Amino acid sequence: MLHDPVRLRSALAHHGISAVVATSPENVLYTGGFWSLPQWVRRGPQAFVVYGAGLEEPDPTIIAGTSTLDLVADQGVKGKIRRFGSFAVEASPLGHIDLVSKRQADLHGLADDESPVSALIAEITQRGLISTTIGLDEGGLLPGDIERLRKELPGTTFVPAASILRQVRAVKTEEEVKRLRTIAGITERSVDAALAAAELGATELDLARAFHLQTVRENAFPVLGCIGFGERSALMNVQPSDRALRRGDIIRFDVGGHYGQYRADIARIASVGPPAPDIAAMYSALHKGVQRGIELIRPGVSARDVFHGVVQTVQAEGIPHYQRNHVGHGIGLDGYDAPLLSPGSQDVLEAGMVLCIETPYYELGRVGLQVEDMLVVRPDGAELLTNCLDTIRVMD
Amino acid sequence: MLHDPVRLRSALAHHGISAVVATSPENVLYTGGFWSLPQWVRRGPQAFVVYGAGLEEPDPTIIAGTSTLDLVADQGVKGKIRRFGSFAVEASPLGHIDLVSKRQADLHGLADDESPVSALIAEITQRGLISTTIGLDEGGLLPGDIERLRKELPGTTFVPAASILRQVRAVKTEEEVKRLRTIAGITERSVDAALAAAELGATELDLARAFHLQTVRENAFPVLGCIGFGERSALMNVQPSDRALRRGDIIRFDVGGHYGQYRADIARIASVGPPAPDIAAMYSALHKGVQRGIELIRPGVSARDVFHGVVQTVQAEGIPHYQRNHVGHGIGLDGYDAPLLSPGSQDVLEAGMVLCIETPYYELGRVGLQVEDMLVVRPDGAELLTNCLDTIRVMD
Repeated sequence: MLHDPVRLRSALAHHGISAVVATSPENVLYTGGFWSLPQWVRRGPQAFVVYGAGLEEPDPTIIAGTSTLDLVADQGVKGKIRRFGSFAVEASPLGHIDLVSKRQADLHGLADDESPVSALIAEITQRGLISTTIGLDEGGLLPGDIERLRKELPGTTFVPAASILRQVRAVKTEEEVKRLRTIAGITERSVDAALAAAELGATELDLARAFHLQTVRENAFPVLGCIGFGERSALMNVQPSDRALRRGDIIRFDVGGHYGQYRADIARIASVGPPAPDIAAMYSALHKGVQRGIELIRPGVSARDVFHGVVQTVQAEGIPHYQRNHVGHGIGLDGYDAPLLSPGSQDVLEAGMVLCIETPYYELGRVGLQVEDMLVVRPDGAELLTNCLDTIRVMD
Repeated sequence: MLHDPVRLRSALAHHGISAVVATSPENVLYTGGFWSLPQWVRRGPQAFVVYGAGLEEPDPTIIAGTSTLDLVADQGVKGKIRRFGSFAVEASPLGHIDLVSKRQADLHGLADDESPVSALIAEITQRGLISTTIGLDEGGLLPGDIERLRKELPGTTFVPAASILRQVRAVKTEEEVKRLRTIAGITERSVDAALAAAELGATELDLARAFHLQTVRENAFPVLGCIGFGERSALMNVQPSDRALRRGDIIRFDVGGHYGQYRADIARIASVGPPAPDIAAMYSALHKGVQRGIELIRPGVSARDVFHGVVQTVQAEGIPHYQRNHVGHGIGLDGYDAPLLSPGSQDVLEAGMVLCIETPYYELGRVGLQVEDMLVVRPDGAELLTNCLDTIRVMD
């Protein structure tokens, strides 16, 4: 299971809601253990999870399209299932079939609730929650959904719940940490594979290809592949081009795939030949900023204090004009989970949070540098998931 | 350019709207030529395009986050730019910088519109469209956005426009066809690569890895990788598992990556050793259904008529109980573009549409078979983008 039921239920109780309805792909997977292909590869298709605050609830209830019942069966999704829509499958002429197929066949026998919102209304009614306050994750709703719910369930109070689930998801279970550790390692090895292709004349696209190939080789999926050479290293979202590698170039990676839907986001800097002394010095300042953040991180510390500690260190150590809107963020099913390490953040660090801590620096037309690593907040401080490098990696 | 300005503008005029506001990642790329990384890899970040119906309009206007101005510059995005939000970049100490960096630096000099919706309100006001009817693509709006627009622009009429843009996108330009042809070919070669790994004992995951590696090798991105063996071939969305390949297994692929954001979606069937005669006969019926569809397809034919022709052919040729909700769909930036080849469809085929035509058939616990190919509707009929196979591919 990805979530901790105790943490989830106490958040619901704390907000005075009787149940939460997950609608975004991330929240449906998180609360219901259901990965519904159509809602991940397109925008529009829906799947919901209803999860009650009470311990006695038969939770969760999964609301799945009939065309996805094979995934419900194959993933061993627990809880009550409601289905909507029609999809033609045939019974087997065989006398005996495997358990997954049998489970799918049984699920097709459920009544058709016709639409995701109709199924949700039926579920709320059946649970006796009509006159309660329900948290509705806004992330996966379509225009008109809220209006229809309010019209058909006038006695029910619906409150936004995406931010509640985001706060719950900020603290990871060990299963989540395991997946994050896995993709962090895969991403580091994918950078190594890309650098192994970094000969003079190789293009950004060549390195990106080598990067993603390693990610796929390790059964992960490509997501983020910002790889820029020289002046292009200063483009913050640089998308690989046919720019060829030259002597003296800085190579900046801001990259990460996903594994079991959990994401990585790390940065690495290399140079072709030794970097200019001022660039090496700036990198060192950025690295010291991240190191200071790592020292500061522990449960109870405010995200704001980490931000100021990191920025002041970079400024003191060699980039006096250094400015940032944030120096890191949570990571998990989303590339930007809570908390945010920013000056305006209200977040306080908790054990089990997984963070990216980062100090990017962009000089337009000249160079982009960035230190970014992943870590878990543990009771006694930060446990790194990646190997934060104190100098630029020099390629011969 | 991905879209045809004449087609887009005449659709706006036909619907009596003065301008359309694109908000979904697909529509922003389509109308504005702007690929904004954050809105593609996460849900929540926004970018908009405002596109006017009048020929005299200075179109399009791109509304981009300040943190994505590098992409605006690097992609050579045309039109007026508005930016929102803050992001720290430093000027270069160099006297001379490259054109992309120079353009990015200039864009940072634009006034900060603070939020996407504020920028949109400013743009509508500046264009003098306050008392007109504007089409609003619902696909990328966040809760509260429409309410805010209606409150701050009480004289403006907003109508939903996602379906208008979907209809415009149904007919592809030659640039779009080129990308679709490319990814169709890459996907076919990726199936070949997977089948090259299909030794006895190899797992579904092994074949999926080989499949995606080939896709990445050809500079495309993995998206859809449903690959199932034997009884698992009947799981319609089958996700690769450690099920090992055995003699007599059917292997079903329902797969496709994207190239330049344009998607493929094709099916292929192989068997380890000769298939059972009844399975070969069913495959033949499914193939004849698709062939009948291909014969029927030409501009002016209704999607409904293609549906009935395909289903009746499959029924007549060997699967009398054959049922489907649809036998194909458009494909492009979205995996399911318009039209839909279904009995209830109102769509009429037009030259330039790119379609997936398909006849899937699932017998739970025994076998899944599927013929699915991609084609362009041309004035004189269908031009295939893939090689529709008339028999199951037999592996020794």
